[in-house]
This record gives sequence, structure tokens and C-alpha cells, in this order.
Amino acid sequence: MPISEFDLIARYFARQDVRRPDVPLGVGDDCALLRAPAGMDLAVTTDTLVAGVHFPENTHPEALGHKALAVNLSDLAAMGAEPAWAMLALTLPQADEAWLEAFARGLLGLAARYGVQLVGGDTTRGPLSVTLQVFGFVPQGKALRRDAAQPGDLICVTGTLGDAGLGLRIAQGKLAAPAPYAEYLLGRLERPGPRVETGLALRGLAHAAIDVSDGLVADLGHILDSSGVGATVQVERIPVSAAFRELVADDWNTALGSGDDYELCFTLPPERRAELEKSCAERGECCTCIGVIEQRPGLRLLRNDGSAFDLAAQGYDHFRG
Amino acid sequence: MPISEFDLIARYFARQDVRRPDVPLGVGDDCALLRAPAGMDLAVTTDTLVAGVHFPENTHPEALGHKALAVNLSDLAAMGAEPAWAMLALTLPQADEAWLEAFARGLLGLAARYGVQLVGGDTTRGPLSVTLQVFGFVPQGKALRRDAAQPGDLICVTGTLGDAGLGLRIAQGKLAAPAPYAEYLLGRLERPGPRVETGLALRGLAHAAIDVSDGLVADLGHILDSSGVGATVQVERIPVSAAFRELVADDWNTALGSGDDYELCFTLPPERRAELEKSCAERGECCTCIGVIEQRPGLRLLRNDGSAFDLAAQGYDHFRG
Repeated sequence: MPISEFDLIARYFARQDVRRPDVPLGVGDDCALLRAPAGMDLAVTTDTLVAGVHFPENTHPEALGHKALAVNLSDLAAMGAEPAWAMLALTLPQADEAWLEAFARGLLGLAARYGVQLVGGDTTRGPLSVTLQVFGFVPQGKALRRDAAQPGDLICVTGTLGDAGLGLRIAQGKLAAPAPYAEYLLGRLERPGPRVETGLALRGLAHAAIDVSDGLVADLGHILDSSGVGATVQVERIPVSAAFRELVADDWNTALGSGDDYELCFTLPPERRAELEKSCAERGECCTCIGVIEQRPGLRLLRNDGSAFDLAAQGYDHFRG
Repeated sequence: MPISEFDLIARYFARQDVRRPDVPLGVGDDCALLRAPAGMDLAVTTDTLVAGVHFPENTHPEALGHKALAVNLSDLAAMGAEPAWAMLALTLPQADEAWLEAFARGLLGLAARYGVQLVGGDTTRGPLSVTLQVFGFVPQGKALRRDAAQPGDLICVTGTLGDAGLGLRIAQGKLAAPAPYAEYLLGRLERPGPRVETGLALRGLAHAAIDVSDGLVADLGHILDSSGVGATVQVERIPVSAAFRELVADDWNTALGSGDDYELCFTLPPERRAELEKSCAERGECCTCIGVIEQRPGLRLLRNDGSAFDLAAQGYDHFRG
């Protein structure tokens, strides 16, 4: 009996190296069967990337496969969850073998790095779109939630901000950059590295956490809203890359407003700062404290000289679209 | 700070009645936190419905919301799993309040009927498409798998087959039907009732099971392939509705080949037949035994007089598209 090309695709994604003992039944039945460890909550997230909206139609499929998983792993990282399983709902205009081979390589490569098993999914014909669900484990009561920030907490971020935003401008031809900077910034846009290890290290250390997908102001705003608190951020302390400094100097709007960096923003009791720094140093990662949580609602942005940084006056336009 | 219309949509879907104690954290953080009961496997499935492919663009949004969940619950039913949670990845060309209200009513209405809590999701702009993931519980080792059919098992189906296929022809203007029949058949196409209770009742009773989404020949074929067995089916024993009989009489091709009925097809040790019939009678449901699993590979279709039923000669064309 002939089988459809889309059945072939499903078989294709079954070619993976990760075989976890907590997956009694993976791809190929009506459901996957999964076994979560005792004492753990299951952290589950889903994100959709639509061609022409979240990525250009001509995005390299390997980068797309990587990014589709990375943005979901970033959500797990922001909860302090350990990645375990993924499901893929892939909608494709046609079954293009070369495209699929590259897409699967990007996705399964990142999955293997974190021991994530692809346990099922659905492949359909239609406008190009990728929906992934990712599952992870976090000890009961230990998840890093948005609503757990406390007045007095330090506000910290991993890595550097604004790089993916500059990468997007380069991709769109709106910003010129020397090759090494362009390569770095496009890499930050197209192949973000989820902060999984940092998220795990922050369990029991940080109070609240979120990943920076929509821009620092927007995402920190979610923590403030959920926790019923406010904050002051020292804008000029926001960590930016050498490429960022070289190309746009102190364009703090981009550092505050541009998304897609997939760094973590978290709040930390000040007495745990030394522990945080030790933990970051051990992993060779960089965390920077840029502000403080306060009782008074609202987000206050300050320059190093103590003057207010006015987003609107600086042409901040993240919410226009 | 202004929030986007798509954030508003997310809040909209948070309006639901089901609040389960096994959901420590639902909609509104980076991940949902879920707590599966001890001793249970998690059964997880995902299905995508794309406008213009799986449903006409002008499908009523309430019916679409119902169906998107129903087809996923049907996969849980086919594993013998008890529904618990759902996540929604919804891609929409624009945020149309009336459309969304009706879509949510269809989805959340069916969810409430089965005690399913919507625990998260993602709403994005793009060509209309609905991806749902649904999670259920099944005692470890008790799931109804496709690979568990044994020679000698009876092949049984729930309800009637071919109705949704006729509904599709009516929707496409290819078949005329008196109003009551048309209404019934369109209802079968647009608002399928997943066989959740039957799936639960089949735990420990049936060997293998699958839901009939692609047509009996295709779906029974999956059981045969996975189990490494063959079968003989008595075509004229396939249960069909009064509407089916009236409109297309003994068009067994439609009963064998048309999809979207979301009935269950399962295999049963013959000595358990009386138990099955008692269990069906208690629920007021109908199960019909239509054939037998055999060691010899392949699917043999017979008429009541013992002659072979030739699918190809009958114009069976399920695999052409």
C-alpha cells in the first residue's frame, strides 16, 4: 500500500540518537507515552514560528530547526527546568527532501546537545510554520516563576542584550557591519543559545525569572506585573557586546527594546550575589546586575549620572507594531 | 504600557471553568507546570488543522474550536488515556473578536465536558492554523498500542463509518441530501464526538487500538503493520448509519476509505466479546465486530457470500491525493 510523502517525513524525524529511558513509546502511535520522575513537576511550553512573520521565507532550514527548538528551550531555562522531550508540529508547502534534511539536522543537533528526545508530532501541508512543544522537569515548588520577585531583589541578566536586534537590521540591509561583527550578530539572531545551564543553576538562588524574547523592558515588565512590584534599572549598566559598542555605541533603546536575544532576566536576593558570581564563573558565563526591584509600581530607567532615561524621547518604538 | 492585541487573545483563552488541582501553574508564565499522578504514563499527542487543507476557510469558528480539540482527544481515546490538559498554538491572520469568541466557545465547551484544562499556548499572526497538544493519563503498561494485535483477535469498530466522508461531499456540493440527513452528516464532519469513554473501557480488554482518522483501510493497516499481522474484514458487516444507507446504499468504498469519522478500531481476544458487549450496552454505545486478525500478512476484504471485495476495481482512490 503506498504511503504519502508526509508519512515519509515523519519517519525521517525518527532518525535521532537520543533514546531516553523515560519514553516508553515515542514516535509512531496515536500518542507518545512519557514517564515523568516522581517529585518533579512537568514544565511545558509551546512556541510557533511563522514564515514571513517570525523569520524570512528564505531562512536557512538548519538555522530554523535550531531556532525553533532554542526558543522553546529558553522558556524551560526561564523556569529552571531540565529539558527532556519535544514534539514537532510542522506545516510545509511541499515535502522538499534537502530542506527537511537541513531542518532536522538543526533541530536534532540542538536536541542531542541537551539530551532531548523528539517523541512525536504532526506533519501537514500548508504555509510554512513550525510549532514545537518542549517538556522539562523541575522539582516541585522550585520553578522560577514570574510572580516571585521581591522588593530589594537585584535585577540581573545573562550575556549581552541587543545583539539579535542588530542582527535583524543587518539581515534586513538596514545596518552595515564588518564581516566578523556581522557574522557574530547574525549568529545571535539565527542560532540563539538557550541558557539552560544557567536556568538550572538559578534554582533555589533566584526569585523570579523570564527569558528576554520581546525585549528587556517588555519582559522585565511581565515580572513586575506578575509580582506586583516596580523597579529601577541603570540603563548604562546593561551588558552589550563589543560588536554592539562598535556599531551603535550607546544606543540603549536597542539594548532595552529589541527582542530575540533569549538571555535570562532574573531577580536575586542581594545576599546571594556572591553565590551567583561564583556559579557564573564556574560555567564561564557572565551575569550582570543592572537594577533593583522596588515596592513602588512602574519601571524607572536611570543614567549613570542619576538622570532619567526617557524611552519615548529616545524614539523607543517597540510597541508600535 | 500598551499590550498587543495578541496578548489580549491569550487572556481571552484564560476564561475557562476547568481548574484542575494537578496544574500548579497554568496560562501566563514561560511554561505551564503540571503534575502527573504516580503510576501513570503521560499520553501526549499533537494535531494541526490548516485552513484550506483540513477545513474550508469559512468553517464556523465554533465548529473549528470543537474539532481541533476533538481530533486530539480521539488520539487519547485510541490509547485508552484519560484526558487532562491541553495547549493551544493558534495562528490567525488578524485578531477578530467575534471569531475568537466562537472558536473559544467550541474549544472550551468540549474541554469542560472532559474536564480538560487549557494550560498554555502561543498565539501568533499568520495564515489560519490551529495546533493543539493534549495530555492524558494511562496506567503504566495499560495503554492501547498499535503494535499489540494478536492473530485470532476480533476486529471491532465503534459507531458508524463513512458519515464524515458523506458530510464532506455535501459540504462540497457534490452530494444532495434531505435536510435531516445533511444536518446529521455535516455534524459528523464538523463536530466529531471523540470516543473517550470507550477508550477508557477498552483498557485491559482490547489488545490494539487506533482512531479512524484516515479511513478504515489506512488505519487498520497501521495496526497490521505495527503488529506484524494480517487480517480479513467482512466488508458488508461494516456499520453504517441510516443516512449512509439511504443516500449511498452499499457504497463500501466510502465506508472503507473515507476519513474524519474519529471512531475507534480495535482488536479484541474473542473470549472477551461478551464483556465488550456488556460494556458497550452500559454506555449506550455500539461496537461491531467486522473481521479477524490473522498471522498471514496483508488485508483481505470479503463480501458476505465469501467473494473478494476488490478495492481498486471499486474505484478506491484514498491514496491518490
